[in-house]
Amino acid sequence: MRAAVLSRGQMVVRDDVAEPVPAAGQVLVAVKACGICGSDLHFARHGHKALEVGRQIEGMPTLGEPAPEVDLERDVFMGHEFAAEVLDAGPDTATFPAGTLVTSIPMLVSASAIRAIVYSNDVLGGYAERMLLTAPLLLEVPNGLDARHAALAEPMAVGLHAVNRSQIGTGDGAVVLGAGPVGLAVIAALKLRGVAPIVAADFSPARRALALTLGADEAVDPREETAWAAYGRAGQGRPVVAFEAIGVPGVIDDIMRMAPAQSRIVVVGVCMEDDTVTPFYGIAKELNVQFVLGYDPMEFAASLRSIAEGEIDVAPMVTAAVGLDEVGWAFEALGDPEQHCKIVVTP
Amino acid sequence: MRAAVLSRGQMVVRDDVAEPVPAAGQVLVAVKACGICGSDLHFARHGHKALEVGRQIEGMPTLGEPAPEVDLERDVFMGHEFAAEVLDAGPDTATFPAGTLVTSIPMLVSASAIRAIVYSNDVLGGYAERMLLTAPLLLEVPNGLDARHAALAEPMAVGLHAVNRSQIGTGDGAVVLGAGPVGLAVIAALKLRGVAPIVAADFSPARRALALTLGADEAVDPREETAWAAYGRAGQGRPVVAFEAIGVPGVIDDIMRMAPAQSRIVVVGVCMEDDTVTPFYGIAKELNVQFVLGYDPMEFAASLRSIAEGEIDVAPMVTAAVGLDEVGWAFEALGDPEQHCKIVVTP
Repeated sequence: MRAAVLSRGQMVVRDDVAEPVPAAGQVLVAVKACGICGSDLHFARHGHKALEVGRQIEGMPTLGEPAPEVDLERDVFMGHEFAAEVLDAGPDTATFPAGTLVTSIPMLVSASAIRAIVYSNDVLGGYAERMLLTAPLLLEVPNGLDARHAALAEPMAVGLHAVNRSQIGTGDGAVVLGAGPVGLAVIAALKLRGVAPIVAADFSPARRALALTLGADEAVDPREETAWAAYGRAGQGRPVVAFEAIGVPGVIDDIMRMAPAQSRIVVVGVCMEDDTVTPFYGIAKELNVQFVLGYDPMEFAASLRSIAEGEIDVAPMVTAAVGLDEVGWAFEALGDPEQHCKIVVTP
Repeated sequence: MRAAVLSRGQMVVRDDVAEPVPAAGQVLVAVKACGICGSDLHFARHGHKALEVGRQIEGMPTLGEPAPEVDLERDVFMGHEFAAEVLDAGPDTATFPAGTLVTSIPMLVSASAIRAIVYSNDVLGGYAERMLLTAPLLLEVPNGLDARHAALAEPMAVGLHAVNRSQIGTGDGAVVLGAGPVGLAVIAALKLRGVAPIVAADFSPARRALALTLGADEAVDPREETAWAAYGRAGQGRPVVAFEAIGVPGVIDDIMRMAPAQSRIVVVGVCMEDDTVTPFYGIAKELNVQFVLGYDPMEFAASLRSIAEGEIDVAPMVTAAVGLDEVGWAFEALGDPEQHCKIVVTP
């Protein structure tokens, strides 16, 4: 079958990928849509660095057999924001009828391990015609929701999780730095929770327009006014929670320098590089920095429901749908925030 | 009168410091003991950098008139861990009788501003024969407690505050990195709260011995075993809160790399320099980093009470008492953790 794979830093199409065969508890699906995540772009460009950081880290829980380290000299499968149609199931495996549109958290359970569907030489991702999912994790896509929008349950769940972990309360406002897909997901989750005001900041006019569409009360160009100054106007003295949704070096330090004393800062943007901070900014203001990642299955399900019920309209975020042959082009095109926000692959 | 002052990076003694005169609400006291704080050593050596960071920071609350910036070309008064005898009070000011041994949080209230007693060209600190304090903030030193030990209410309150802000709960254990005065204060507060196990780490045998005296269950030499490995043995799977009480670059990143997933990290060591961190360590493990500073007046009072009632024995921490002439020597001597922990100035 066909799949777009990462090969020595480039996305290329292979026509001879082995057909996946579902084991017990697994389901074979036909991918209908798979969003391209910024972390995929980053891994394509900085995979060696990401793997190096992963090797250094201690204290990570392991579930079953540890995953083999990704070999960047071999093809790497990616794509973790998917909606797909059920084709077949493994032995003794109960699942939805063939043809059902489903999605799930990107975890593949086998008899020996729980593996993330994210970057792997052997676990297929959503940039492929077919892939394997885990039967008990499948959620049926409700309300006839388009697969391209159902695929966004995953990135929108990231925003919901960040907001949940932020412990933002009634009476708090929010500053969201960066209005890429992660920042927009945070804005949508904040809006749904009734947080006000929500002040977003992004250099791109197109991204600022999306921020307003998704629920920001103000969207500022940091070259003209900082988010902090705008919040000073709009927040009327309310405590503020800051969401870092940019993920490039220097941003955390800048937030620590600018945030009001006693603020909470939620780091949801994924910076894979070393970063320089000034601890004294945090100390002098007793800041709290909460790093967050991913979501839990309940948050994923809530995210899908919010999209399907029209509480969150993700349609404006999807700026293109491309075939497997165009994944390489899409990885490049996503470098321009004026042209694209979320590109969905429809194999 | 006489005072030891910071003059172009060196501690020197002046014989001609103007006698302080208490205004309404202020009390003139004779300093009996004043602990030398690590932050004083740091300011003496890196004052320019500290002031530069202070200029960059935004979002700090101001109380009344902003304090004038410290001029390092002029004499700087320091000393914020003091116990002193009441001498006289300003007009219409009720206070304790002359001769009463008192202490207070290091804040001087005047008609126009609230000023920290910490580093100043005009607000006197405790490295002086006499200084001014704020009448309503004074606490009488109870139980005949020695002034040299009462002076430690301040640094021990820093540890209590860090533990309070950590939200450490029943069933959590603690790792304390660094067993200088701040780390020891954290250990004492953790012990008093019943936290177990408390694993401390320090390169210095003398400091490790003090850590055990103040209440640590284990004190490891990181060259032989990391605190994390020791906690793995002693913690029996309990969640851990990590206290960073070293305050030099690289420590926060090392804790982020080593701490178990979902850990809380409390940064109580004051690093005034830039620092390099790997945000991905925090993200992958959803770490929470709480920066803390100082204490509130209730915590200060509780700290004094704990010392006076014998719940915390600070005597082993006090390794020397020196006159004003020896403050310069003491600043140097505190560079060797084997010889000294807390040196108290007795003007």
